[in-house]
Amino acid sequence: MLKRHAAFEKLSPSYLFPEIQRRKEAYLKENPDTELISFGIGDTVLPLPPVIAEALARAALELGTEKGYTGYGKEQGLRPLREGLVSRFYPQFSPDETFISDGAKSDLGRLQALFGGNLTVGIQDPAYPVYFDGSILQGVEEIKLLPCTPKNNFFPTLPSGIDLLYFCNPNNPTGKACTHEELEKIVAYAKKNNTLILYDSAYAAFIQDPNLPKTIYEIPGAEEVAIEIGSFSKMAGFTGIRLGWTVIPQKLTFSCGSPIAKDFHRFASTIFNGASNIAQKGGIAALTDTGYAALQNNITYTQENAALLKEAFSKMGYTVYGGDNAPYLWIATPGRQSWDVFQEFLEEKHLIVTPGKGYGPSGEHFIRASAFGYRSTLQKIIAERQNV
Amino acid sequence: MLKRHAAFEKLSPSYLFPEIQRRKEAYLKENPDTELISFGIGDTVLPLPPVIAEALARAALELGTEKGYTGYGKEQGLRPLREGLVSRFYPQFSPDETFISDGAKSDLGRLQALFGGNLTVGIQDPAYPVYFDGSILQGVEEIKLLPCTPKNNFFPTLPSGIDLLYFCNPNNPTGKACTHEELEKIVAYAKKNNTLILYDSAYAAFIQDPNLPKTIYEIPGAEEVAIEIGSFSKMAGFTGIRLGWTVIPQKLTFSCGSPIAKDFHRFASTIFNGASNIAQKGGIAALTDTGYAALQNNITYTQENAALLKEAFSKMGYTVYGGDNAPYLWIATPGRQSWDVFQEFLEEKHLIVTPGKGYGPSGEHFIRASAFGYRSTLQKIIAERQNV
Repeated sequence: MLKRHAAFEKLSPSYLFPEIQRRKEAYLKENPDTELISFGIGDTVLPLPPVIAEALARAALELGTEKGYTGYGKEQGLRPLREGLVSRFYPQFSPDETFISDGAKSDLGRLQALFGGNLTVGIQDPAYPVYFDGSILQGVEEIKLLPCTPKNNFFPTLPSGIDLLYFCNPNNPTGKACTHEELEKIVAYAKKNNTLILYDSAYAAFIQDPNLPKTIYEIPGAEEVAIEIGSFSKMAGFTGIRLGWTVIPQKLTFSCGSPIAKDFHRFASTIFNGASNIAQKGGIAALTDTGYAALQNNITYTQENAALLKEAFSKMGYTVYGGDNAPYLWIATPGRQSWDVFQEFLEEKHLIVTPGKGYGPSGEHFIRASAFGYRSTLQKIIAERQNV
Repeated sequence: MLKRHAAFEKLSPSYLFPEIQRRKEAYLKENPDTELISFGIGDTVLPLPPVIAEALARAALELGTEKGYTGYGKEQGLRPLREGLVSRFYPQFSPDETFISDGAKSDLGRLQALFGGNLTVGIQDPAYPVYFDGSILQGVEEIKLLPCTPKNNFFPTLPSGIDLLYFCNPNNPTGKACTHEELEKIVAYAKKNNTLILYDSAYAAFIQDPNLPKTIYEIPGAEEVAIEIGSFSKMAGFTGIRLGWTVIPQKLTFSCGSPIAKDFHRFASTIFNGASNIAQKGGIAALTDTGYAALQNNITYTQENAALLKEAFSKMGYTVYGGDNAPYLWIATPGRQSWDVFQEFLEEKHLIVTPGKGYGPSGEHFIRASAFGYRSTLQKIIAERQNV
């Protein structure tokens, strides 16, 4: 029998959200009649705008016709989709510098495999668990956690020696959205330290403040140091449909001069076959003027939820961060263990939140609340359970 | 700047199909008016049966409704889909032992990551390049190629010491479909040598002979030594839609006793988020009695193509293997380099085939022809270009 891969033994036994799910199910088993309301996992709930749902349906029906049927697509993704991304978000790049994926999470995994384990990684603390767990799976031995707390306005101090820096902005879970000046510091650091930035922009659509950068490439020189990973999940409600993208500027090379994009494409050709063609057609529709305008309604709705939630938690006396340019609130629970707070919210208030510790040690004494959800549910909770 | 991952330097510079595509495009650039016909990549061309296309479209439209919208699904896949797989193909297993993927290729990559590089791998030669390239990417240093040639009736001799054995049946590219007795030998070998079998059944739907096993689990004891990877790609024309599955029996453990399925699920939760929900609904439709019956028409059509092609190549004097229980013909071109034959077919006959050497050293002096394609095209070629 095979030996278990050593990296798996180093992983914490359960990924954060399955553990939340496990605790939720255990509670419901004991208390089957309880109505639980979730501010936990950042999952979309609003129906797709008709223009997008119809484009997806049309793509499916076309596959039932001789003329419209297509088999394997290019691993890099449909060109009209890449053109749509470039024209909407990245006018300075060519569609050849974009790669379509089945979601940011999967592409993070592929990028991690691309760079392997023999490097020093820097990760915001707290952070999306995939950066840390995925690095462990690659056998990375040196991971520098970069605390992001109220003390530093959730902007990390960067020690030297980081080869690969994960940077999520707007941030999950803290809801922080960086200024131009802050991102300039990150880019300058990367240039000085020969660092490659993996910039996760999965929540960029939630930036409301027109003065804040929506992509790392608004910073001059970022195209020499940064890969950007984007997603249709939260922007377009594609969490279940699975569609994302990665921008790998052609200027990015390994130290030997070989282009990073070339190996990424080779990797994708070898053990990935591209995102679903139906999902890609939906993505094309989402990037048209009509589709993109329709999406904004859902985004605005979620941001209004965030404002209501922020007000409610603040009224209860909590200090609340984030929520203005991100769909997440980061709520301080000083002196209390965040899994204890999670359990208390579950058992006493019948609310699911996410314990901050699940995002790293600096997440202890915080909980994350997600603004994805129906307004009516949220208002009901605010009205009925003033004790949130 | 980051150092390039050493494993990538060991890969051959181009994956087989992109290289074929490159040569094809180069030829068309010089000869823009040439009509090329492809028997190359095994890509589906027939439209989806209406019952399946409509199920996909319905799933898409439901995402545009409050009631029908769903976000993240379980990483393991929709339960009705796993139940459908189990009831149709694996009555001895529980749906909990099946895992839905975005295709066999992606799941092979995830399995490879799960087992890492510190093991000895056995691969049929010739074989689907993903087994070899994916192993290299994991840092596997010892790969035993197991020649499958007319001399051994395309059934390999198995040397001792293989930890992980890739076994594709019906085989791509040779078109060989194993008998019960042959698969029993594989299972007995695995039991004796503590080998884990990664059994790729992507072409199982093409087995016409009722005496041949359609899954490894028809062999008693296989559930103790084999993981089976299946796909909707060729069976249901889902090459572009992306849907597959992997069966990991609960009896399968690492040497420490920890279940393999547990780590696979952890991996999938960490850097994969499941297959597209729309694709999964299409998969459910494909497994209903109506859907599955409709699929058979497309499969029969392709098998009839294979018979016609086999006859045509045989008439030309080639010795042709496969094609009876597989959509591939394996055509001997003794004494000739297979890339030369590829180029000759391209330039003189305007036909794309796949050079056997792309599948491993024992593929030299063979070419693969794929039976996926329209009958009319095939008949036209047979009529016009008797010199195939």
